[in-house]
Amino acid sequence: MRKELSRLIELDREIVLLAHIQALLSWDQETYMPPKAVDERSEQIAFVEGLAHERLVSKEIGELLGALGSTGGADLAPSEAAFLRVLRRAHDRAVKLPAELVADLARATTLGQAAWVEARSRSDFAAFAPYLERIVELERRQAACLSGAASDSAYDALLDLFEPGSTEASIRAVFGDLRRELVALLGKIQSRPQVEDSFLRRPCAAERQATISSWLMGLLAYDTSRGRLDTVAHPFTTTLGVDDVRITTRYLEDCFGSSVFSTIHETGHALYELGIAPGAEFVRTHLHDAASMAVHESQSRMWENMVGRSAAFWRPNYAKLSELAADALAGVGLEAFVRAINKVEPSLIRTEADEVTYGLHIILRFELESELISGRLAVRDLPSAWKAKTGELLGLVPPDDARGCLQDVHWSAGLFGYFPSYALGNLYAAQFWAAMEKETPDLEERIESGDLASLLAWLRRGIHQPGAACLPGELVRRVTGSALDPRHFVRYLNEKYSRVYGF
Amino acid sequence: MRKELSRLIELDREIVLLAHIQALLSWDQETYMPPKAVDERSEQIAFVEGLAHERLVSKEIGELLGALGSTGGADLAPSEAAFLRVLRRAHDRAVKLPAELVADLARATTLGQAAWVEARSRSDFAAFAPYLERIVELERRQAACLSGAASDSAYDALLDLFEPGSTEASIRAVFGDLRRELVALLGKIQSRPQVEDSFLRRPCAAERQATISSWLMGLLAYDTSRGRLDTVAHPFTTTLGVDDVRITTRYLEDCFGSSVFSTIHETGHALYELGIAPGAEFVRTHLHDAASMAVHESQSRMWENMVGRSAAFWRPNYAKLSELAADALAGVGLEAFVRAINKVEPSLIRTEADEVTYGLHIILRFELESELISGRLAVRDLPSAWKAKTGELLGLVPPDDARGCLQDVHWSAGLFGYFPSYALGNLYAAQFWAAMEKETPDLEERIESGDLASLLAWLRRGIHQPGAACLPGELVRRVTGSALDPRHFVRYLNEKYSRVYGF
Repeated sequence: MRKELSRLIELDREIVLLAHIQALLSWDQETYMPPKAVDERSEQIAFVEGLAHERLVSKEIGELLGALGSTGGADLAPSEAAFLRVLRRAHDRAVKLPAELVADLARATTLGQAAWVEARSRSDFAAFAPYLERIVELERRQAACLSGAASDSAYDALLDLFEPGSTEASIRAVFGDLRRELVALLGKIQSRPQVEDSFLRRPCAAERQATISSWLMGLLAYDTSRGRLDTVAHPFTTTLGVDDVRITTRYLEDCFGSSVFSTIHETGHALYELGIAPGAEFVRTHLHDAASMAVHESQSRMWENMVGRSAAFWRPNYAKLSELAADALAGVGLEAFVRAINKVEPSLIRTEADEVTYGLHIILRFELESELISGRLAVRDLPSAWKAKTGELLGLVPPDDARGCLQDVHWSAGLFGYFPSYALGNLYAAQFWAAMEKETPDLEERIESGDLASLLAWLRRGIHQPGAACLPGELVRRVTGSALDPRHFVRYLNEKYSRVYGF
Repeated sequence: MRKELSRLIELDREIVLLAHIQALLSWDQETYMPPKAVDERSEQIAFVEGLAHERLVSKEIGELLGALGSTGGADLAPSEAAFLRVLRRAHDRAVKLPAELVADLARATTLGQAAWVEARSRSDFAAFAPYLERIVELERRQAACLSGAASDSAYDALLDLFEPGSTEASIRAVFGDLRRELVALLGKIQSRPQVEDSFLRRPCAAERQATISSWLMGLLAYDTSRGRLDTVAHPFTTTLGVDDVRITTRYLEDCFGSSVFSTIHETGHALYELGIAPGAEFVRTHLHDAASMAVHESQSRMWENMVGRSAAFWRPNYAKLSELAADALAGVGLEAFVRAINKVEPSLIRTEADEVTYGLHIILRFELESELISGRLAVRDLPSAWKAKTGELLGLVPPDDARGCLQDVHWSAGLFGYFPSYALGNLYAAQFWAAMEKETPDLEERIESGDLASLLAWLRRGIHQPGAACLPGELVRRVTGSALDPRHFVRYLNEKYSRVYGF
């Protein structure tokens, strides 16, 4: 079986190499590409995607997977078994989707995104509704292809695309507890005087913010011989090679916190990607990948929120920050700064939400998208359902659909099942952190003394290194000793905000 | 035959698309790629190159070319016939080279370039000689494969790679006249007092130079919605798509002229690429390409030297340049500036040579590389042959091989047959210019009044638009009414330098 396995690795490396090339094509499109090149670039990306797909569904890969599967795998090392599981999952999924459906989805989401941009700018849901109806219909067909007739919930099949092993029921159970606790905490916070944060809107030049971003990347030990920072409209992290993981940010001159926290967030993603180490045999294969989107978010959000918004992190670093930010932080002390960057206030827009209300935004989307996919909610009723749920969860009612159900790109892009990853990421992060604190009781003191290396070493060993070798559920059990439990996140929030708001 | 032709165009578009992707991979490597990504990037480039090669030599393309060739082509439009000629040439060439030889050459030149970098830094020709011997041997085998047993001169087959239709004999005839004239002109110049140019070495900050470069790109009507400028170690132009042609430069703080003229030079290349318009049917095929390397150089050198180093160009633009260059040009008038940027002085390094001595550097390389390929000169005798010829042509003797036969990268990269393109480019440029002046007698006045649009329009119509539809020999005849004639260049140089040096 050694020969078959080696051949499979060789074939898989070509697929991953094509994915890295596709990442460069997309990165360049967002950063430096001249505007008129956009049509050609879409063709180039589609072409490379097609080459990768062709290879992934190839008869040879299917036969090799079949041959290796039928031996029972008794003589396989754990990493070999994991590689076969991950590649089989990708192959099966690609094979299950008819080429026609893939093409229909690509077309519908391309048109859908253009229609969404237009509809959002005019807050005109009716104009977007037919596109969304078509996308929901195709997503349901996709789910049916992926799950066969076996599954009770079409939505399960979509969730599994982003968070392998999760189901609507398992997420609903977790989100039920979470919702109750977040609403209770929000009530406590709202009974206290609001914190002052107006200085965060003082002007700070883009060049100053760029200097701050470079400095932060250095503090977090992001190896810029294996990555870099560029500016874009919507920040992201992308992997162009195992030694080439790039992040992006943007500089808003009247909101320098935006680049500070997006740089830390994206650096968190990059540290994960750069830390994956599946062993020499599996470098640059499908095993050389993240465990899931939610585990990815756990890393970015841990660095952004649990580290980057903590007093412990800023204690040794705040003097330098206020020097670099100059006038923007003049006369603002460390305590006032830490309070300001942790201000909690229900708002309509998910991407601007604080750590407490963010989860409520996600629960809202989870509930509505599962209803859309199951057919319990019709697309035309989405705006009213959205308004009702925003009122229920956040105590606000969006004045229009642009600030309501038209605010996110995801559904127009066909990303049903993706939203839960964001909230699950927070839960994983808090549970990982609790385990880390148990093993390293002086973790906070270390961070306070400027030592982030122990934290990174722990993450590398436990979470980064295995990459896709563990399913997310296995990973959390292996690292923390128990299944996913939202109480860690609830405890973290309660401790943090009782200090910030003094209750 | 329509169906076969359409299919061939479709297949060829994939090959060109892959070439554009490869160009992005290489552009990124030179501009932004993190250093540790270099090994993976080489693999990515080799992989894409392999995909393109596979397609180019494919049985289907061979059969389609065969089917279309055997009909006699009586019913083909001229652009269709040209497309078949260009694609057949590329296909035949790729088919003639055994995969083993291609791989051997790739390996030998990769090793050769690394050895060359090292040898040049220590001026140690003996360390490089074995690598060069291997490359020369493989180049001779390549030439034999390309030409079959038919050709008298292996070097002809290599010249034809870069300048289709040229031969050693045809170039030797042209260079013979050129050499005599250049030596005579140099003698006249050296009998006159030297011009003053020390102010060109005054410091000028990189940001100022960047502003100057952007301004120049605008003056030359380089459409930055279809291109851009970045900084690199060795400036180049590259085509990532028909609407994505990018240039590069570098900013030497004590030599701002370097970025001024390299920006104009590379913009000349970009204007050519952006102006190729083979008709909708052939967009993004092999017909959508330059006529040859020498025609490409004719465009970059025409803009750099015939426009960018002329008094006519600077008359309306010098005030702005001295404002942007600030201290660097303080107290320097237009006439002194134009004299300084046209200073002639024999020197050892080709890339720093002026317009008069540049041709002598090329003739030296042409003569030596033809002897190396024919076997009349042994690699071990190259340093002494180089020294002798430099003395003969330039009146100088290199004190070491780093400033002698180790100065250029080309031979270590296997680019035998490429050097003549540089000098031919100058000859084409002068001959095109003479034709343009005949049709537009007030060309100089137009340029003096700041009108570069008529010049560009003429180039687009006559030279850019046809792209690869004309062989270079045909192009020069069609545009100028006669075969390549070095006297145009000689006349241009004599007129220019009699003004600069007052004889």
